[in-house]
Amino acid sequence: MENGTLSFKYQLEKKEPRSGPGGITRGASVHEFPVSTGIAGVSMRLEPGAMRELHWHANAAEWAYVLTGHCRTTIIHPDGSSYIDTFGPGDTWYFPKGYGHSIQGIGPGECHFILIFDNGDFSEDHTFSITDFIRSVPREIAAQNLGISLEEVDQLPKKEVYFAQGEVPDDASVFSAQRSVPELTSRHRYPLDAQQPRRVPGGGTQKLVTSAEFPISTTMSGSIIELQPGALREMHWHPNADEWQYYISGRAEMTVFLAEGKAVTEQFESGDVGYVPMGAGHYIKNTGVEVCRVLIGFNSGHYEAIDLSEWLAKNPDVLLQGNFGIGKGLVEKLPAQKLFIKPE
Amino acid sequence: MENGTLSFKYQLEKKEPRSGPGGITRGASVHEFPVSTGIAGVSMRLEPGAMRELHWHANAAEWAYVLTGHCRTTIIHPDGSSYIDTFGPGDTWYFPKGYGHSIQGIGPGECHFILIFDNGDFSEDHTFSITDFIRSVPREIAAQNLGISLEEVDQLPKKEVYFAQGEVPDDASVFSAQRSVPELTSRHRYPLDAQQPRRVPGGGTQKLVTSAEFPISTTMSGSIIELQPGALREMHWHPNADEWQYYISGRAEMTVFLAEGKAVTEQFESGDVGYVPMGAGHYIKNTGVEVCRVLIGFNSGHYEAIDLSEWLAKNPDVLLQGNFGIGKGLVEKLPAQKLFIKPE
Amino acid sequence: MENGTLSFKYQLEKKEPRSGPGGITRGASVHEFPVSTGIAGVSMRLEPGAMRELHWHANAAEWAYVLTGHCRTTIIHPDGSSYIDTFGPGDTWYFPKGYGHSIQGIGPGECHFILIFDNGDFSEDHTFSITDFIRSVPREIAAQNLGISLEEVDQLPKKEVYFAQGEVPDDASVFSAQRSVPELTSRHRYPLDAQQPRRVPGGGTQKLVTSAEFPISTTMSGSIIELQPGALREMHWHPNADEWQYYISGRAEMTVFLAEGKAVTEQFESGDVGYVPMGAGHYIKNTGVEVCRVLIGFNSGHYEAIDLSEWLAKNPDVLLQGNFGIGKGLVEKLPAQKLFIKPE
Repeated sequence: MENGTLSFKYQLEKKEPRSGPGGITRGASVHEFPVSTGIAGVSMRLEPGAMRELHWHANAAEWAYVLTGHCRTTIIHPDGSSYIDTFGPGDTWYFPKGYGHSIQGIGPGECHFILIFDNGDFSEDHTFSITDFIRSVPREIAAQNLGISLEEVDQLPKKEVYFAQGEVPDDASVFSAQRSVPELTSRHRYPLDAQQPRRVPGGGTQKLVTSAEFPISTTMSGSIIELQPGALREMHWHPNADEWQYYISGRAEMTVFLAEGKAVTEQFESGDVGYVPMGAGHYIKNTGVEVCRVLIGFNSGHYEAIDLSEWLAKNPDVLLQGNFGIGKGLVEKLPAQKLFIKPE
Repeated sequence: MENGTLSFKYQLEKKEPRSGPGGITRGASVHEFPVSTGIAGVSMRLEPGAMRELHWHANAAEWAYVLTGHCRTTIIHPDGSSYIDTFGPGDTWYFPKGYGHSIQGIGPGECHFILIFDNGDFSEDHTFSITDFIRSVPREIAAQNLGISLEEVDQLPKKEVYFAQGEVPDDASVFSAQRSVPELTSRHRYPLDAQQPRRVPGGGTQKLVTSAEFPISTTMSGSIIELQPGALREMHWHPNADEWQYYISGRAEMTVFLAEGKAVTEQFESGDVGYVPMGAGHYIKNTGVEVCRVLIGFNSGHYEAIDLSEWLAKNPDVLLQGNFGIGKGLVEKLPAQKLFIKPE
Repeated sequence: MENGTLSFKYQLEKKEPRSGPGGITRGASVHEFPVSTGIAGVSMRLEPGAMRELHWHANAAEWAYVLTGHCRTTIIHPDGSSYIDTFGPGDTWYFPKGYGHSIQGIGPGECHFILIFDNGDFSEDHTFSITDFIRSVPREIAAQNLGISLEEVDQLPKKEVYFAQGEVPDDASVFSAQRSVPELTSRHRYPLDAQQPRRVPGGGTQKLVTSAEFPISTTMSGSIIELQPGALREMHWHPNADEWQYYISGRAEMTVFLAEGKAVTEQFESGDVGYVPMGAGHYIKNTGVEVCRVLIGFNSGHYEAIDLSEWLAKNPDVLLQGNFGIGKGLVEKLPAQKLFIKPE
């Protein structure tokens, strides 16, 4: 059943990181993880005050989920409107393709978040940093544009900063540009973990955010799945999107079914990334003794899934008898309603 | 005028079929028919009770036209709704990309239908069958998901079924899941041959179904053209879609005009497939002594065509004189209104 | 800062033209100008009465700007509606992909216009002319379709006409098919130069037409930028579109910033074409002693830009201090509002 040439697993957290002042990052695009043609992802950590500098992505929107700690983002839109938001564990953000933004850890402690991009070809080659932009034009242009002298231009960074150690913003300061309204959701922020989950007794839960709940996220959606030990997120597929997974905790097994007898079964643990192409069948089974928690991102703002149990339940028994070549007795044992998650 | 390297004709019904219990199928994708990059097609036949098993297509929607006999389909949507429909000669269906479905011949006699997919790269590699899915996961997963024992899992097919011989459903039976409402059209069914045609006296007729008449068919549309002997579906092109043709009966000639002096003229007969790339000029001429009947599919839910006669008629005479370098007398003989089909 | 392998400049007006009766044309697609993958362009000139014959483009819409002289176009839509419009300097047109059209110089003097196509792969291979279409089908088909004799078919051009010398239309003639309503804008015409510009005192102006002002232009937009000597269209990028430039007059410098330290700085003068990929940073500096005038086209009906000054202005000072590693004093000198164009 295994196909030696393809793997749908990438050990992201075991990758050698790129690091700088106060920050480290690990990325997986189609270059490192060949099956992930539709979605790329990054695991990033920022110390208090450390920032991923002002930058933009030329070919992808960015969807994020905060695992631990707190951070603050700034973003500008082409119409000139700008937004500052603060995020904690379980919160998500969405930044449209090409919009300038920054991310800063605000402590206490490290902030660890997962970024997902709706283009597997995403890479640093498509990521543009403000310091790199300014140092890439003639000094005279930078001076004219910024309204400063050539000598002052020379005080700016000589190469791309990428990570920078700054000060933790003080919202009590009169100098701060802070959010004045404590909104639960905002243009760019949706607190996914605060949502009431879809619950299967004894099996697990799902929290889901799509463009219906979070209107700006037109090109991506995401979910958090929790599976109890032994529980099975049943066999299913997504007709409209690729799926990118980050295993937050626990252990799991997944088979990716690719038609014509091709299927790949692999084992996942905390820090691993999984990928399922659009339309490919798959399941996730908790094979450990702890709850298994998985962050899942899709490259569509709409969520669609077809589960095996519901498909079987909605077809006439006589058709299933013919399809499987089995008797009425066995057909009547098959699922008569949607399972979604099957307890052990 | 002929270009030896390209052909826009594929002799589908002369291809060696794939066959199984009660069913045979012949397909043409870009792999067998290189010009057909935008649309693939299949000719399939099912005996009474035989079924194309529960399956889904990962990269294409499916549009169908029934040539002979009767069949029944089942389909499930991601929202859990499901539909069962019955089709006879001249009826069409549309199944969105990735939705699980089945097709069963219901007799009397063989059911023969043509399937068209909105992706020339469609192939069995992108077609997922339920038996193949179930046998591709570990036995323990299948048992947990289906709620049956490992021994019962072993009673299921060991390999993909594809075609299966089942029982013809009996709608009078209390056990049947039947359509209770005799609707003329339904979510997935449009009876194209029941439509009033667009008629050109002495020339022929066209019946056409687009997303306007059949709302679910957002990515495809189709038509049936009948040409009298000697009649010409005039020179025209489609600005917005590729065209896939199945010659149902009769004989015809088509030139595909590819600009820069390149054109290919070929002869077609019953069972042949033709293809015209988006924007390429073409005509269809009935060269036989019988009515020529052609099924035509487009990879857009909207139908657009520009006919040569109407284009000429809508331009000033003085412009045509200059364009063709001809006198007023000859320009005045050119078509003064749209022909669509020109009788012999 | 220079990268020797890539150039974002093409000397269009120095290219050897294709010419015919009354017309000459120079084109730049991805074949001649490799970076221009998203947009192609053409510079064309027509003498009075000369016409670019009836033709269509299979894979691109056409957006045009008239530099000098006057011309008239005809176009047909798939629904059979047709339009005739007259254009002078500063007027733009838009023709959807695949719609049949013609362009005729109407004098006095030469008409010079720039055409932009929303597909860098646009080429003569995708351009279909009516005379080429008619001569590419069997004579008998042409005769049947046009309702003329085989001898009359032989009077039609034996090869593609492309350019033809015709008569200047006389709107006063009773035989003319003329526009009867002197509309300022029409379905296919928008007089861009008649627009009130966005003006930066001492710096320059911008006129802009998008699908908001010109509804049919759903896939393209355009602008005319005028820069005073020494003025700088500041550092910015477009999140949603590639940019194609035609330098009408004056001299300019542009750096295209490609991330990861890659940037290309080049000098432009009248008749040169520039190109900026979606998301790439750039500026345009007037390096001459005259006003620099640039025609700019985008492959999106919406216009989006993010300017460096506004991005800086909308971020907290403390963040900029950290990002650039500079003191509060220098940060306070940076732009506090959007510049758009910076005077010398």
